[in-house]
Amino acid sequence: MSDYSVIGKSVPRLDAVPKVTGEARFTADLQLPRMLCGKILRSPHAHARILNIDVTQALKLPGVKAVITGKDTPGHKWGVFPYTRDQQMLQTSKVRYVGDEVAAVAAIDEETAEEALELITVDYEILPAVFDPLEAMKDDAPLVHEELKSNVHIHVPIQVGNVEQGFAKAHLIREDTFYADEDSYFMSEPYAVAASFDHAGNLEVWCPNAGPHMKSKPLSNALNLPLNKVKVRKICIGGAFGGRSEICPADFICSLLAMKTRRPVKIVYTREENSIATRQGHAMITTIKTGVDKNGVVVARDIKCILDGGAYTSTGPIAVSVPFLCHEQAYRVPDVRFNGYRVYTNKPIRGMIRIHGRSFACGIDQQLDRMGQELNIDPVEMRLRNARQPGETTSTGSYVASCGMTECIQKAAEKIGWKEKWEKLPPYHGIGIGINSVQTGFPLGIRGGSQAFIKFNEDGGVTVVSGVVDNGQGNDNMLIQVAAEELGMPMDQIELLSADTELTPNDPGSYSMVTTFAGGNAVRLAAQDARAQLFDLAANQLEANPADLVARDGNIYVKGSPDRAVPIPKVVRRALIKGKPIMGRGSFSPQVDHRREWVSNPHGQLSQAFSFGATAVELKVDPETGQVTVLKVVAAQDCGYALNPRMVEVQFEGGVAMGGQGGMLTEHHEWFQGHCLNPTMLDYKVPLACDMPPIETAIVETLDPAGPYGAKEAGMSVAMSAAQGYAGAICNATGVWYDRFPLTPERILEGLENKQLAEKKNEGPIN
Amino acid sequence: MSDYSVIGKSVPRLDAVPKVTGEARFTADLQLPRMLCGKILRSPHAHARILNIDVTQALKLPGVKAVITGKDTPGHKWGVFPYTRDQQMLQTSKVRYVGDEVAAVAAIDEETAEEALELITVDYEILPAVFDPLEAMKDDAPLVHEELKSNVHIHVPIQVGNVEQGFAKAHLIREDTFYADEDSYFMSEPYAVAASFDHAGNLEVWCPNAGPHMKSKPLSNALNLPLNKVKVRKICIGGAFGGRSEICPADFICSLLAMKTRRPVKIVYTREENSIATRQGHAMITTIKTGVDKNGVVVARDIKCILDGGAYTSTGPIAVSVPFLCHEQAYRVPDVRFNGYRVYTNKPIRGMIRIHGRSFACGIDQQLDRMGQELNIDPVEMRLRNARQPGETTSTGSYVASCGMTECIQKAAEKIGWKEKWEKLPPYHGIGIGINSVQTGFPLGIRGGSQAFIKFNEDGGVTVVSGVVDNGQGNDNMLIQVAAEELGMPMDQIELLSADTELTPNDPGSYSMVTTFAGGNAVRLAAQDARAQLFDLAANQLEANPADLVARDGNIYVKGSPDRAVPIPKVVRRALIKGKPIMGRGSFSPQVDHRREWVSNPHGQLSQAFSFGATAVELKVDPETGQVTVLKVVAAQDCGYALNPRMVEVQFEGGVAMGGQGGMLTEHHEWFQGHCLNPTMLDYKVPLACDMPPIETAIVETLDPAGPYGAKEAGMSVAMSAAQGYAGAICNATGVWYDRFPLTPERILEGLENKQLAEKKNEGPIN
Repeated sequence: MSDYSVIGKSVPRLDAVPKVTGEARFTADLQLPRMLCGKILRSPHAHARILNIDVTQALKLPGVKAVITGKDTPGHKWGVFPYTRDQQMLQTSKVRYVGDEVAAVAAIDEETAEEALELITVDYEILPAVFDPLEAMKDDAPLVHEELKSNVHIHVPIQVGNVEQGFAKAHLIREDTFYADEDSYFMSEPYAVAASFDHAGNLEVWCPNAGPHMKSKPLSNALNLPLNKVKVRKICIGGAFGGRSEICPADFICSLLAMKTRRPVKIVYTREENSIATRQGHAMITTIKTGVDKNGVVVARDIKCILDGGAYTSTGPIAVSVPFLCHEQAYRVPDVRFNGYRVYTNKPIRGMIRIHGRSFACGIDQQLDRMGQELNIDPVEMRLRNARQPGETTSTGSYVASCGMTECIQKAAEKIGWKEKWEKLPPYHGIGIGINSVQTGFPLGIRGGSQAFIKFNEDGGVTVVSGVVDNGQGNDNMLIQVAAEELGMPMDQIELLSADTELTPNDPGSYSMVTTFAGGNAVRLAAQDARAQLFDLAANQLEANPADLVARDGNIYVKGSPDRAVPIPKVVRRALIKGKPIMGRGSFSPQVDHRREWVSNPHGQLSQAFSFGATAVELKVDPETGQVTVLKVVAAQDCGYALNPRMVEVQFEGGVAMGGQGGMLTEHHEWFQGHCLNPTMLDYKVPLACDMPPIETAIVETLDPAGPYGAKEAGMSVAMSAAQGYAGAICNATGVWYDRFPLTPERILEGLENKQLAEKKNEGPIN
Repeated sequence: MSDYSVIGKSVPRLDAVPKVTGEARFTADLQLPRMLCGKILRSPHAHARILNIDVTQALKLPGVKAVITGKDTPGHKWGVFPYTRDQQMLQTSKVRYVGDEVAAVAAIDEETAEEALELITVDYEILPAVFDPLEAMKDDAPLVHEELKSNVHIHVPIQVGNVEQGFAKAHLIREDTFYADEDSYFMSEPYAVAASFDHAGNLEVWCPNAGPHMKSKPLSNALNLPLNKVKVRKICIGGAFGGRSEICPADFICSLLAMKTRRPVKIVYTREENSIATRQGHAMITTIKTGVDKNGVVVARDIKCILDGGAYTSTGPIAVSVPFLCHEQAYRVPDVRFNGYRVYTNKPIRGMIRIHGRSFACGIDQQLDRMGQELNIDPVEMRLRNARQPGETTSTGSYVASCGMTECIQKAAEKIGWKEKWEKLPPYHGIGIGINSVQTGFPLGIRGGSQAFIKFNEDGGVTVVSGVVDNGQGNDNMLIQVAAEELGMPMDQIELLSADTELTPNDPGSYSMVTTFAGGNAVRLAAQDARAQLFDLAANQLEANPADLVARDGNIYVKGSPDRAVPIPKVVRRALIKGKPIMGRGSFSPQVDHRREWVSNPHGQLSQAFSFGATAVELKVDPETGQVTVLKVVAAQDCGYALNPRMVEVQFEGGVAMGGQGGMLTEHHEWFQGHCLNPTMLDYKVPLACDMPPIETAIVETLDPAGPYGAKEAGMSVAMSAAQGYAGAICNATGVWYDRFPLTPERILEGLENKQLAEKKNEGPIN
């Protein structure tokens, strides 16, 4: 490993300075000549029929350049899958949640645009609404989409082995139900989109996105434009966390306004719109029945999961499946059944989120801890006995080539001082551990692989051309580091051109944790291709065999003879003179089973590699206030190989912030009649740097055979296991088995009060 | 040939509509946020020492953001060749022509920038100046560059065979001297440059250019920036004609102002600046001694050429050589000597121009006509007997693989009705013919070849990525046409990404007539590479051999079985699913002798292919006014193969306008003490569409073995031979052998008057 010159080193991030100084520009900052301000009129009702929309007065307002309604759209409904096309970009007949898109305006400034919105008259017939997924599943519930006859629109059924036989063999069986609320990403960057349309029919779009090629496709489909006329551009992006994967109605609306006005248009979401009109995490009810043998080894599981999907399907089939898939990767289960349901309600639309399925993951771990308690096996031991091992195959058929689950558990336990502390801590002081596993990419229609080109300047400088987008996690750095390693060149001689559907080749997008695996491999292959061309020429100059050459520090030299060297720029110039310029190309597609489908065929290789994480937490609970003080967090993850250890650690730290400190202690949405009560940063508590506990990290390296240099995903299995670890530690500290997440002070206190009441009841009447 | 589906068809130009409607944007139109206006302070003196520059008052003017002088530059002198580095971007010690750059300002608007220029005080010590190259060659002439000890800074000596022995064999020898004035390009687009510099050290530059990669290199060198930090961008360009090949002081100054202010800066030249501060055509004095045998076949030539270079060298070595090289390509000459001198004077700098060396080319043809007259051989016959034939090698060693010179002469003669009209026309009505030949590219340091990438969208749409720039001649169309042909796809499914040093791979630039040859071949190879990948996949789907497949009309089918077909988008999607995305690449470098050097070694293969043209002209001269009325022009050219016949014809028509109608009848600069007297479009007469004569074109196709589909250059050998044809026809009409070009009405009248005087003299005294 120590053979690498750049890979495996904590090189600083190239975007650190512009982001710290404020020089970095985001979509909301974009200014184009003659740009108009776009604003969207949203439904004030949770469920209503649209009787009439009158835009006459709005159009008369000076400065208003366009007003559009659903009639101005091509009429397509959009959906991630052919069988989930249920969302119009502007509603024509019904609104289904408070915030649903009804009309939009483009005007010369924000004030005029807002005034125009007020001048649009919409006649609604208010309909009965449903806000609870269990209510929505009832036969007499109002139908969110009448034509579908049911509010249950996604059902993922998985059955492997014989669950009944499994339970029959069990020594101990428990069934519990767990609940979790909706949660938000709360990126500091507000959602914004700018669009421009020229007379040659080119649509240019700038927006925060997790994959420009994944935005251009639905835009092309919905607007009837060829893909190469839809140019989704790169601009700084302030976080994605699963929330920038999909097309957003605003993308489409902004494009339509630009096409209608033939002027650039920009829409910037208010903080309220960010909370209601982008995707957020699902509320989820999970019932888990688990059977274990007398050693605590799980023999069977039956899981039922109900997701509150809100008004439209979005990535529903994936969202329903992922919590189960993460679970089946982390834990061995011979006989298992899963039924996941996503239910429409008259609430905002839910999608993917980095810490997805809190009730599921925390439920699995919590239940295991309870069963361990009955069997007198501690949580660490319970996990070690059930943890996934390398070389195994998951229940639904994914071969796991590399797996450091056991090592992660051991490291987390060791560093938190598990043996010294378990059952030895004073009251209201506890420790806990959670484990999880995530995919490094999964198939999503024709996502194809990641592709890269490499070109050389005459002075030896390199440009890497890749479709990969950097959402803030440091992908740009990673790609340059990979190219630098393969080409044996300093990073500052390598420029990156990325994430633009016109300029760069295809990439499947920076979500589903695939980027390092696919994008990194593609750039690596392109660089190796270029290097082979360099070596062919240099071999001639050095009178050596290309196979004996090494590229390092800007030179190519003969292995073992550092004096027999030629500088790379010299080889590049020689190539130009000889008319054989160096041009590299590479592509990489993860080996997955393309027949696998989320609903109709959830079997086969899901992802080529899986990462594994364990988070151990030590904390204190104040029994008077329910406040939690986290003393220490240990985040251990098998990321395959840390290409940039500091960046990996930062991902771990972010995972703890999002999954644990925010996701388990404070973050959840509150509702009244479909209205979100805490849409802003003042009401919705996201942890700040000053709120964060001390975090110790442990990088576990298993060198995945297919990952670039062995690398897989970094950070998400920490984010998920952090939630579980926090929950476990709170239960341990309080002696209460909580079943509703997140664990806000109110809920912790309620649990403590109930426990006291129950204890009193057991003591019998006082009198 | 008829096998092609797109190539060889007159497909309309993609840029026609935006250029006609005014939607097209040029550099002068570019607006960036916070952009400043840049202005340059120029020398009012032809030759003066700079004693002091005081910018204090200018800096105090509110709204002025930067003032720079030579002290703010890194101090490099710039030159196209290492041995011609004589120009500072801002002068520090001397000014050498009226217009020389002294200082520059960046201010919030144009008025402020102009006011600031007036507040800069420069103390000059005026020096004696020299304006005539023959004067400048004298020992006691003022030295434009003292350190060089002589104003003669370029001397290109060529000698092939034994010229004295050649003349000894001659039946008839003539020696004549010809003169031509300076001329201008007069693009309708004014020169403009915009620059922006960010905190990551990236310099972005937009400017009309004939090759962005040829602009980025000198900027990188002069500003000490790595090449991949200098990003020369594409924008619409309104003509080049040889005048956009070089870096321009404004490019450098604008970049410096942007770097100093950290704001975007734009400099737009006034029409006067366009005439004095960009490159223009040389004034030239050419002495030609030719010996012919009794059949009119040239046996020896000795040519001496003096070019008025103005204050700096620019592309001097090339400019001195090209007229001779064109001549040696067009005409066989066994024994030949050439001595070309470029001389500094205190006048604006001269460079390359599309019709270059009017005194040279017209002199050669005129002298040949005179000798033919003495031998009673008509001009067409004289040319046929001396014309270059395919398979021959030029005097300086270039093998000529394809050559349609003879056919061009025959076609031009036939279409003008030569046999019917020669010596049969009434007085002041004449015909003439000129012939010439140009290169398709020549070596210029490490220009390398042209490179191209091809990528596919998921829907089957294609993006071609090429460094080639379109200066207005239709290169974009050509590249898309080539890709469409090779991929068997409609042109509207192909997008082009071109001419940007960051986004595209290298290209040697759209000058020296190389673009179709190199850029077209590179794109063709990239498309063939992509097609081979498509065929590999389709072969499997069609159960056929890849070698038996054909791509056409968006489908791949088995040769001879159009029913066994698969649509290309289907193959592209299959490639994505299989993880083998289609990615094409290609590069092409013309096969030339890289040891060849303009001054030190003018021998070896200059260019891989040569085009040949003949222009025949019929016209009338009004003996009272000297006005010429052109009745008909026939432009015949061997362009190898016409990829787009209409675009080739348009190039011919433009050639006649620039070389003949403008270049021979009206266009020349007039001077007083180094001041240009006619810098504007009102004073300098460029022909308008309404001035143009009827033009008949004849495309001669010789299918060059290396050109794409056999194509070579189109238009420039017409431009050059048009000047010669116009001159020949005027001499024929007037019976006067003119030796000063262009032939303005004043000169024509003067010639006629001299002729009458001479005739009267011969008649003896009247009294």
